[in-house]
Amino acid sequence: MTTTICAVSTPAGVGAIAVIRISGPEAIGVANSIFKPFGKSSSLLSAASHSMTYGSLVSDDGSVLDDVLVAVFRSPHSYTGEDSAEIYVHGSSYIQQETLRLLCAHGAVLATAGEFSRRAFANGKMDLTQAEAVADVIASETRSSHRIAMSHLKGQVANKLAALRAELIELTSLLELELDFDEEDVEFADRGRLLALSETLNAELKSLSSTFKFGNAIKNGIPVAIVGSTNVGKSTLLNAICGEERAIVSDIHGTTRDTIDALVNVNGVLFRFIDTAGIRKSFDAIEKIGIERTLQQIKKAYVVLHIIDATEIDQCPVIEHDNIITVINKIDVVGKQRLGDLMEKYGPNCVTISAKYGTNIPQLTQMLVVAAHMADNDDVIITNERHYQCLVKAMKSLDAVIEGLTDNRTSELIAEDLRECNRHLSEITGEISTEDVLKSIFSRFCIGK
Amino acid sequence: MTTTICAVSTPAGVGAIAVIRISGPEAIGVANSIFKPFGKSSSLLSAASHSMTYGSLVSDDGSVLDDVLVAVFRSPHSYTGEDSAEIYVHGSSYIQQETLRLLCAHGAVLATAGEFSRRAFANGKMDLTQAEAVADVIASETRSSHRIAMSHLKGQVANKLAALRAELIELTSLLELELDFDEEDVEFADRGRLLALSETLNAELKSLSSTFKFGNAIKNGIPVAIVGSTNVGKSTLLNAICGEERAIVSDIHGTTRDTIDALVNVNGVLFRFIDTAGIRKSFDAIEKIGIERTLQQIKKAYVVLHIIDATEIDQCPVIEHDNIITVINKIDVVGKQRLGDLMEKYGPNCVTISAKYGTNIPQLTQMLVVAAHMADNDDVIITNERHYQCLVKAMKSLDAVIEGLTDNRTSELIAEDLRECNRHLSEITGEISTEDVLKSIFSRFCIGK
Repeated sequence: MTTTICAVSTPAGVGAIAVIRISGPEAIGVANSIFKPFGKSSSLLSAASHSMTYGSLVSDDGSVLDDVLVAVFRSPHSYTGEDSAEIYVHGSSYIQQETLRLLCAHGAVLATAGEFSRRAFANGKMDLTQAEAVADVIASETRSSHRIAMSHLKGQVANKLAALRAELIELTSLLELELDFDEEDVEFADRGRLLALSETLNAELKSLSSTFKFGNAIKNGIPVAIVGSTNVGKSTLLNAICGEERAIVSDIHGTTRDTIDALVNVNGVLFRFIDTAGIRKSFDAIEKIGIERTLQQIKKAYVVLHIIDATEIDQCPVIEHDNIITVINKIDVVGKQRLGDLMEKYGPNCVTISAKYGTNIPQLTQMLVVAAHMADNDDVIITNERHYQCLVKAMKSLDAVIEGLTDNRTSELIAEDLRECNRHLSEITGEISTEDVLKSIFSRFCIGK
Repeated sequence: MTTTICAVSTPAGVGAIAVIRISGPEAIGVANSIFKPFGKSSSLLSAASHSMTYGSLVSDDGSVLDDVLVAVFRSPHSYTGEDSAEIYVHGSSYIQQETLRLLCAHGAVLATAGEFSRRAFANGKMDLTQAEAVADVIASETRSSHRIAMSHLKGQVANKLAALRAELIELTSLLELELDFDEEDVEFADRGRLLALSETLNAELKSLSSTFKFGNAIKNGIPVAIVGSTNVGKSTLLNAICGEERAIVSDIHGTTRDTIDALVNVNGVLFRFIDTAGIRKSFDAIEKIGIERTLQQIKKAYVVLHIIDATEIDQCPVIEHDNIITVINKIDVVGKQRLGDLMEKYGPNCVTISAKYGTNIPQLTQMLVVAAHMADNDDVIITNERHYQCLVKAMKSLDAVIEGLTDNRTSELIAEDLRECNRHLSEITGEISTEDVLKSIFSRFCIGK
């Protein structure tokens, strides 16, 4: 008892063209019931899959609503896997609404958010990670986030998980040999081998889940903290990178007290620059809170830009982070000798700039892109919180397996933990899923997808 | 030396699907150069017109930008009449921009506003009134404005003008008989018959141009002035019609001083209701200006709602307009006897309501729709300012023709005015057009149309 659904699939608003999508057993019939082909074109009912027919949309009173193209897609060769049609109307809001009304009057119902993709998932056209990637592809605004979303759409996450689960199944089958002979108390499986396999698998899960911090950063902007003493030019640098007056700049020490965020697309990678309060001993209560926040931002940042004033000597605070770029600012006011000394002192991972005059800013951003590990590689990167949570649960189950093997627990107990691990991995691709999970995933889609 | 143009044809923003349109001699080749079909589908170069092919958009570095459907339209069977293609991408802003960039890298150029429609006009796919109707269809938000725009798209204005011009040509040919024999000073044409024909034609032009006031009102909202004494419930009525607190309501006489506009869609017709200051002798300077404005609004209104307080006797001002509906308000506080008296006094074109309780508001709006002559008819209605101006000029030339015939001027002079009249009518459909006129028309289109 599947319904036929319809929705506007193009963005809201007025445009030259709007696309109205219909899917379900009656899709082609419903479209045909409000459509009159021009000239010698035949009815949609006999149209070939992936063909377009030109004609009029006709209201019940016989008046012409619009002249349109209608594309027909026959099951299973459609996005949803069902019979589908797409109507390309003139993008007036009136025509869009009226077309939906007519389709509903002829038996269709309005689609809920993500319902087309949910049907594609239900009909085996894509697994859950691919369906989620559809939403990510649509939301992607930079080259890097788009690149990862496309690789997920192509099934990269599912393929990686299939490999991991193959190892899991090997583990389970070894253990089952034991289970079969349990009564005789024979230990067929080599527990040492089981343990080695478990640990390999655990390392792989850990490596995969560890990509999430980075993957999530790519989706939402890689956090870069701009830190240093007061008055070294942190806000001036933020403005130079943004190309606009984002932060207030003055000669007064302690001008910035709040942390200021700015999203900037650098060579296709989204960075979230965080301008922070300068670190110094301060008696100003508000500034003190600002400095406290700076220290927190350093912890959360993926990369830290440590700004040093080329004219000051040994005034810079010690900053602890494993991904620091030292930025020597104000090179416009110091001599070559001084600059050479500083570069020697701070080693290769430093860059000399003038934030005020924009000198060497491209070199700095290039170093940032490198520091963010955005070298093109084909590693699978997790960007989805749900996938990450499932991986964490799977690792927990696997930890229990390893513990069971070490503590010499019974095969039944260990097998239960293995099944649990497998279940969590299956949830990622949707081989196992609950109505609640599916609802929560697809309701975040836009209508018409 | 025609270029191949490309543009996003769907509204700006993120949606499930975006349509990228390409037109020009290289359209299919350019699309094919960034497209790799899936499976056993063949190249776009050999695809049939009106067929869709599924495959990947591929960047220059070989990475997949998106999985898409591409439709191919072969000249002359396309919107523009040229070879065309449409790419249906996932509606991410990144993918849309990147697709345009790739198309341009392979030889296409970005389309200017209305360039697709301008090419359709240049290739004889539509006349100028139809091209303008495309923009009107896209902008239409109500049933009535959509209905008129669709009839124009179907060539109704052009057909009407063709009929008028046939009459004009008959006139001209009669006059030319005269011209041919001019030297012999023979008057072949029956000047009486010429005059009768001219006057018929002039009456038809007048009738057509007179629809503009109404056609323009339909497009921008039919102006309805709500007038009456102070405190009869005009603002309460406006709020009842709008279904929201649009105007401030109080028991104090003279609460409304500015005129307040509200656009309301009533049964598919757009009305612009104008709440006005109550008419009374006032000593308040601002209120006096308000009353002056009310009198102006009455003149401009297409329909006047004259509100009368059922509890007051003979307090209503005299209002002059040829399309008045008398609205007797506050029927919730008067008896049947009084109501009967009032209805008898004001005749059939009155309605009794309670604005406060919303009683009989649907009856009132129904009367409005009738008063606005929105009975469905197939008369040609002019909605376009440019068409109207051309008609006015054509009538002026025809007046000169009639004057010339009456004053017995020479055939040459009269023929010149006839040609002038014909020229103005030809400008409407674009048979005669200048670059300036075309630019001004198409630059108002959206990009991608």
